[in-house]
Amino acid sequence: MDRFENKKAKQVLLFTDTQGSPLKNRKIRADQISSEFLFGCGAFDTLEIVKPKSEESKAFFEDRMGKFLQLFNYGTLPFYLGRYEPVEGQPMQEETIAAAKWLNARGVTVKGHPLCWHTACADWLMDYPNEVILEKQLQRIRRDVRAFRGIIDKWDVINEVVIMPEFDKCDNAITRICKQYGRFGLVRRVFEAAKEENPGAELLINDFNTTNAYEILVEGLLDMGVPISTIGIQSHQHQGYWGLEKLHTVLDRFSQFGLPIHFTENTLISGHLMPPEIVDLNDYRIPEWPSTPEFEERQAREVCEMYTELFAHPLVRAITTWDLTDGKWLGAPSGVMTKENEPKPVFHAPRNLTHGDWETHTELVTDDQGAAVLYGFKGTYSLKAEEGSAEISLLASSDLPGRIVLQ
Amino acid sequence: MDRFENKKAKQVLLFTDTQGSPLKNRKIRADQISSEFLFGCGAFDTLEIVKPKSEESKAFFEDRMGKFLQLFNYGTLPFYLGRYEPVEGQPMQEETIAAAKWLNARGVTVKGHPLCWHTACADWLMDYPNEVILEKQLQRIRRDVRAFRGIIDKWDVINEVVIMPEFDKCDNAITRICKQYGRFGLVRRVFEAAKEENPGAELLINDFNTTNAYEILVEGLLDMGVPISTIGIQSHQHQGYWGLEKLHTVLDRFSQFGLPIHFTENTLISGHLMPPEIVDLNDYRIPEWPSTPEFEERQAREVCEMYTELFAHPLVRAITTWDLTDGKWLGAPSGVMTKENEPKPVFHAPRNLTHGDWETHTELVTDDQGAAVLYGFKGTYSLKAEEGSAEISLLASSDLPGRIVLQ
Repeated sequence: MDRFENKKAKQVLLFTDTQGSPLKNRKIRADQISSEFLFGCGAFDTLEIVKPKSEESKAFFEDRMGKFLQLFNYGTLPFYLGRYEPVEGQPMQEETIAAAKWLNARGVTVKGHPLCWHTACADWLMDYPNEVILEKQLQRIRRDVRAFRGIIDKWDVINEVVIMPEFDKCDNAITRICKQYGRFGLVRRVFEAAKEENPGAELLINDFNTTNAYEILVEGLLDMGVPISTIGIQSHQHQGYWGLEKLHTVLDRFSQFGLPIHFTENTLISGHLMPPEIVDLNDYRIPEWPSTPEFEERQAREVCEMYTELFAHPLVRAITTWDLTDGKWLGAPSGVMTKENEPKPVFHAPRNLTHGDWETHTELVTDDQGAAVLYGFKGTYSLKAEEGSAEISLLASSDLPGRIVLQ
Repeated sequence: MDRFENKKAKQVLLFTDTQGSPLKNRKIRADQISSEFLFGCGAFDTLEIVKPKSEESKAFFEDRMGKFLQLFNYGTLPFYLGRYEPVEGQPMQEETIAAAKWLNARGVTVKGHPLCWHTACADWLMDYPNEVILEKQLQRIRRDVRAFRGIIDKWDVINEVVIMPEFDKCDNAITRICKQYGRFGLVRRVFEAAKEENPGAELLINDFNTTNAYEILVEGLLDMGVPISTIGIQSHQHQGYWGLEKLHTVLDRFSQFGLPIHFTENTLISGHLMPPEIVDLNDYRIPEWPSTPEFEERQAREVCEMYTELFAHPLVRAITTWDLTDGKWLGAPSGVMTKENEPKPVFHAPRNLTHGDWETHTELVTDDQGAAVLYGFKGTYSLKAEEGSAEISLLASSDLPGRIVLQ
C-alpha cells in the first residue's frame, strides 16, 4: 500500500493541439512544479529585504530567503501585537504587506501569526479596562484580516489558549480578558471577528499543549460552532524528538474532528538537548548553544522521519519549521541554515523528500484517442511535448477527462 | 480570622413565651442538632437492610448503618445501570426507594450515583445502535429522576467524561455514544434530561481527572448553558495523600466558576500505598490489603487535615468518604470501620471535628427586650429554656430579628 496515496490524484487528460486535433501516441513530459502540501518555515526575515537596514544587509537576507525558496512554499509572517503595533495606532502594515507580496510573488503562501496571544502582546493595551481591551483586540483582528485579504488568507487566530487564563509569567492584557470572558468566550469572539472579514480564510487555533485539555477545548469550540478551519499543533522538541509513538498519539487525538491539521511550529535541534526538568522552554537561556556535526545528522534524520509520518497522514496539510536559521528562538541550533546562511544537513535531507520522492516527474504516452492518465502528487504540473506545453493543477482525482491544449 | 466563618451564620432572635411576652434576661440553651454541610459516605449497605438476606444479616447491617448515622448526614446510593437494571425493564426501583426513604427518615440526604457512566454499564444496551442507546440512556435518566423526586434530589448525572470517549478497557454502550455525540453533546443531553424531570435538583458532573482538561470541559459546558449545579471531584488517594499543595491547586482550579464543589469520592487508606506506577487504580488487585495500627493513625490524621481544608473553603459544600468499611472498592483498607463494623481511629478523630469543633453548643442570654444573638455553624438548632423549647434553622445571616416562641 502506498502511504502517500492520500496526497496524490489521478486524472485522465485528453491532449490536443491548438487546432483541436488529438495528439495520438505521443510522449508527454509531466513535471510537478509546485506542491499542494505546504512545506513551511518562519519567513520573518523577508521584512529585512523589503525594509532593509543597508544594501549589504539586504543582499545577505536575499541570499537567505533565496535558500528558503529552494525548500519551502509556505511562510509564516509575524503579527505579535507588541511588535506589529508597538505604539497604538502605528501598525507595521506597509512593510508587512510588502513582505507578504514578496513571498506571494515567489510562489509562497503566507500565514499570519498570531492575531491574539498573551505573550509578546502590546503593553499599551494594559492601560484600558477589560471591555476596551477586548474591543481593541477584535478591532485589530478586523483591521489586519481585512488589510491582508488576498495576500494572507491563512491566520493563526489565537495562540496557546489552554494556558492563557493561567499564564502568570507577566501581567498582560490578553490573560486579563481570557480570565474575564473565559477561554470559550474569547476564542469564539476572535474567530467570529476574523471570519467576518475574510469568510474564505483558513483560520487556525494553535497550541503547544497536545494533551486531552487541548482536545476538549477544540471539541467544545466546534460543538459551539466556532469557525475553526484547521487545528494547529506546535511541536518544539528542544528536549528531544517526540518519536513515532507520541506522534501517533497526537495525530490520533486531533484527527477525530476530521479537520485539517497543520504542524505549525516544528523544532528539532542540532545541539545538546534542553534538560527535561525545564517546564517552560523560555526559562532555558544559555550564552551559546552550539550545533555539532553529530547532532546535525540526528536533526536531519529526525526531521525526515517526522515529515514522512506527517506527510503520510491524510489530515495533515502543512508542516512549518519554526526557525529558518540557528540562533533564533532561545538561541537554539534549530535552523535549516547557520546564522551565516550555510545550509546544514537538515537543509538537504528533507529536500530529497519534498523535492525528490514526493514530487512527480514522469513521461505520459497518449493512446490513439490522445488520452493519457496523470497520477501523481497533488500540485501544479507543466506538461510538454513537441507540439507545445501547458500548465495544470492536479488537486483531486476525477473520472471526467480533462482537455489539455498544448500550445 | 476564623477560617470557618463562611460556614457560620448570625441571627438576632427575639424570644417570647406562648402568650407573646418577651423572655427577658433568660438563659437559653442552643444546641446544634444538624449541619447544613454534608458529611457523606457510601450508603450502599442500606439495601441490605431494606431487602435483607436473612434476619442475622439484617441485624449486622443495621448495626453498621447505625454507626454510619453517628458520623454522616449524607449518603450515596448506587444507580450503576448494569447493577440497577441488569435485565432491561427490571430496575431495582422498589428496594432503592426503600433504602433512600430509610436514610431520609434518619436525617440523611441522599445522592444517586451515577446516571450515566461507561463503567458498570448494562451489557444489554450494547445490542442497540447508537441512536437507540442514547435514547434509552436519556429515558433511564428521566424515569429515575422522576421516580425519586423528593426522595433523591441530588444526582451525579454523568461520571468521568474526560476519559469517556477514550476509555478502552472494555467495549461499552456509553463510550460508543460519547464518541458519536462528543463529550459536550452527550453531557448536554443527559443534564437537560435530568433538569427537565427535576428542575430543583442539585445536578453534579463528577470526575477523577483534576487537571485543566476537566476544568476546560466544565468551562465549555457552562459556557453552553448546560445546567450543572455543582462540580464533583473524586479524590481516591490509594497512592498517597494529595497533601495541601495539590489540594489548594485543585480547589483554586475549580472554584473559578463560583459553583458549589462536592468532594464526591474521597479515599484515604490505612494500609500500604498502591505503587505509583499504577495508572488505572482498578489494575491493582491483591488478595489481601491489610489495615495496620500505624497506617490507621496516618489515615485519621490525613482525613482530619483534608476535611479541615475542605470545610474551610467557601465553595465546598460536601465531602463524601467513598467506602464505609474496609475491603470494599479494590479490597482496600479504606473504610471508617472494619469489615466487622469495628470503628477505626478514622471513625473517631474526624467525628471530634464534625460533631465537635464544627458544631455549635452554647448558652444565649437574652437582653431586657428578650433578644439574643445566635452565631454558629449553619444547620438546625434546638433552643431550650425553662419556659419551653423550639427548633430553628440557621442557614444565613440576617439583620431582621427572628421571633422564637418557646413552648
